[in-house]
Amino acid sequence: MAKINANYMKLPGSYLFVEIKKRVAQFREKHPNADIISLGIGDVTQPLAPAVVKAMHQAADEMAKAATFRGYGPEQGYDFLLKAVVKGDYLARGIKISEDEVFISDGAKCDVGNIQEIFAKGCAVAVPDPVYPVYLDTNVMAGRTGELKKNGYFAGIIYLKGTAENNFCPGPPSEKADLIYLCSPNNPTGAAFSKKQLKKWVDYARKNESVIIYDSAYEAYITEPDIPHSIYEIPGAQEAAIEIRSLSKTAGFTGVRCGYTVVPQKLIGRADGDKIKLNTLWNRRQSTKFNGVSYITQKAAEAVYSEEGRAQIKQVIDYYMENARVICSGFAKLDLKMYGGVNAPYIWLKTPKGMSSWEMFDHLLAKAHVVGTPGAGFGPAGKDYFRLTAFGDAERTKEAIERIGKSF
Amino acid sequence: MAKINANYMKLPGSYLFVEIKKRVAQFREKHPNADIISLGIGDVTQPLAPAVVKAMHQAADEMAKAATFRGYGPEQGYDFLLKAVVKGDYLARGIKISEDEVFISDGAKCDVGNIQEIFAKGCAVAVPDPVYPVYLDTNVMAGRTGELKKNGYFAGIIYLKGTAENNFCPGPPSEKADLIYLCSPNNPTGAAFSKKQLKKWVDYARKNESVIIYDSAYEAYITEPDIPHSIYEIPGAQEAAIEIRSLSKTAGFTGVRCGYTVVPQKLIGRADGDKIKLNTLWNRRQSTKFNGVSYITQKAAEAVYSEEGRAQIKQVIDYYMENARVICSGFAKLDLKMYGGVNAPYIWLKTPKGMSSWEMFDHLLAKAHVVGTPGAGFGPAGKDYFRLTAFGDAERTKEAIERIGKSF
Repeated sequence: MAKINANYMKLPGSYLFVEIKKRVAQFREKHPNADIISLGIGDVTQPLAPAVVKAMHQAADEMAKAATFRGYGPEQGYDFLLKAVVKGDYLARGIKISEDEVFISDGAKCDVGNIQEIFAKGCAVAVPDPVYPVYLDTNVMAGRTGELKKNGYFAGIIYLKGTAENNFCPGPPSEKADLIYLCSPNNPTGAAFSKKQLKKWVDYARKNESVIIYDSAYEAYITEPDIPHSIYEIPGAQEAAIEIRSLSKTAGFTGVRCGYTVVPQKLIGRADGDKIKLNTLWNRRQSTKFNGVSYITQKAAEAVYSEEGRAQIKQVIDYYMENARVICSGFAKLDLKMYGGVNAPYIWLKTPKGMSSWEMFDHLLAKAHVVGTPGAGFGPAGKDYFRLTAFGDAERTKEAIERIGKSF
Repeated sequence: MAKINANYMKLPGSYLFVEIKKRVAQFREKHPNADIISLGIGDVTQPLAPAVVKAMHQAADEMAKAATFRGYGPEQGYDFLLKAVVKGDYLARGIKISEDEVFISDGAKCDVGNIQEIFAKGCAVAVPDPVYPVYLDTNVMAGRTGELKKNGYFAGIIYLKGTAENNFCPGPPSEKADLIYLCSPNNPTGAAFSKKQLKKWVDYARKNESVIIYDSAYEAYITEPDIPHSIYEIPGAQEAAIEIRSLSKTAGFTGVRCGYTVVPQKLIGRADGDKIKLNTLWNRRQSTKFNGVSYITQKAAEAVYSEEGRAQIKQVIDYYMENARVICSGFAKLDLKMYGGVNAPYIWLKTPKGMSSWEMFDHLLAKAHVVGTPGAGFGPAGKDYFRLTAFGDAERTKEAIERIGKSF
């Protein structure tokens, strides 16, 4: 008799964006003519950079001829892309990462979800609250938690509470955590760790032999000079952290699928008394369960790192960050409390008038025909907050903010 | 202290194709001018079909304009591709599968590796021997086995031995297995289950409430009429089996990455006494840990199912199967015992003169400059066998067979 992984039954009903999609669909059914503006799901809207599209066309043509056709590529990614990543994202910032420490993947979500597999079931896990739900959910599925409690927290998880008081940048806990998920710039709060704050985490991890899983999918949106783009800007971090990056938000790859994970050779885990390289384990995981990223996608990703590509994606990022500025200045007039929007394309709004975040969702959908994301979807600490994203069309974003203003 | 998943330590040193790559590299270093022909790794060599390349170009152009740009797609795949799969692979054979039973992925290897996650750790697993190593390795990683024994078998696994006596089509075991991996047409033996043989498996699974994970990545190579292309051709199989398919070998997508998994709504697993739909669990798994396949890839995959695309890929499959015929008739003259090559692009050779399969590998590399795959890499039952593939260039394949003939 095939028994299922009963840990799945601990997960609450619906994944956040599925629930949002459902509510929007129900609203559309009743109001088929409503002109809905979505500032909800963190999805980009601007087209791919011309240099990226050009690279795709060239790669597709290579695949059309026997002489240049490519079959299976290396599970870890093609050399040309590994080199571009190392040079563009690390050497350029004075960080020494070698190509065999980088693993190209079909996106940060997969890596963030799969990385926990190489660790023991008994590891104590720390996750920020609020945060991108994948860190927590994948550990629930793997059996690293108890049941979901009535207060919305899972038993057995160390929650790192982001609050207005700590500027949504929680520091290390008093307990010992083995695996620590950090997201900076943060989704959903838009907060980003300073070097000083991040150093505390690296020191904590080195002292306790913990591993930080550092999700920096939004690093391209950092505008302030003291905010590190990579955790490896902190001395000693190669002995403390895995870094996960994505081209989804950097270069509009949400529908193209490419990211990467850095597992430094210096990073170790324990098996009984033995020290084991996590790089070896992740390489084994990827070689066994993954078959590499589309050649066409990898050539497209390489183009992101070209001079032409970099200039083109910067324009798009500037466009989105101008939206963030518009949102922030619009809300400032409304006297709404908000965070983020400076080093991230996310604006984290305190719900007004004691509204819960789902009440705010329903209010904005009904009264302003604007879709945002309820903070509660990112953890209990988000229950009085609401996430808006700067990924929309500029004109539509302006209109959305006007409509929201009128709705209150 | 971060402890690692100690199950990884049970795995033997190297993944098969990594070891082969290493030996070939060592040989090349010593003999830089050797003209090596690879009939080893099961990788295609012919270019993508023109219809597929055309669809890629069109999709890339859509991604270049804001009006037609696509961001995140559904984790389960786009409707257009789900419809094409249902119509082309199932309705066309009289099988009723609905779109919400199909999950598009970036390839069969990922799905085959990940599917075990939705089952309990305590499930008894049956795997063919010899077989594609991913079924076994991913269950070792998940902790469903004991240690590797000296005889090459893992403790706690039910092995389904494929031998010349059972034509490499083993029947159900006397023990109760909960999860059963079947691969038909088989990699590496080239054997394929008949309807009658497969019915025995479906009956066994229904009786024991087991789940068959049916890998039919090579169904496009079936030439004999009695061989089922889908396990769902067997009545009742929708209550007994998950089916995993790939475009890698069907349409040369090894470097493009697209496959799919069918989890019928009727298929259930047990959680204590409760019956749980496996479709719901897999949907949850994919929604949480996966972010869909590249839009460009999905449009390319859709083109495989067009009339034009089908005709073009058929030509390529015929080309490879002519290679299979050449290999078989060449070996027949040498009086070598062999299997497969009729419903699969694999020829499974009995090693001559009492050679072990790795001895045969080294012999062919040194004496014929031909790379094949040692049967031992697919399990202990493969230790006296050797796999050759029909995916090479026609002229090179002919030459390889001539060289092999001379080497003995």
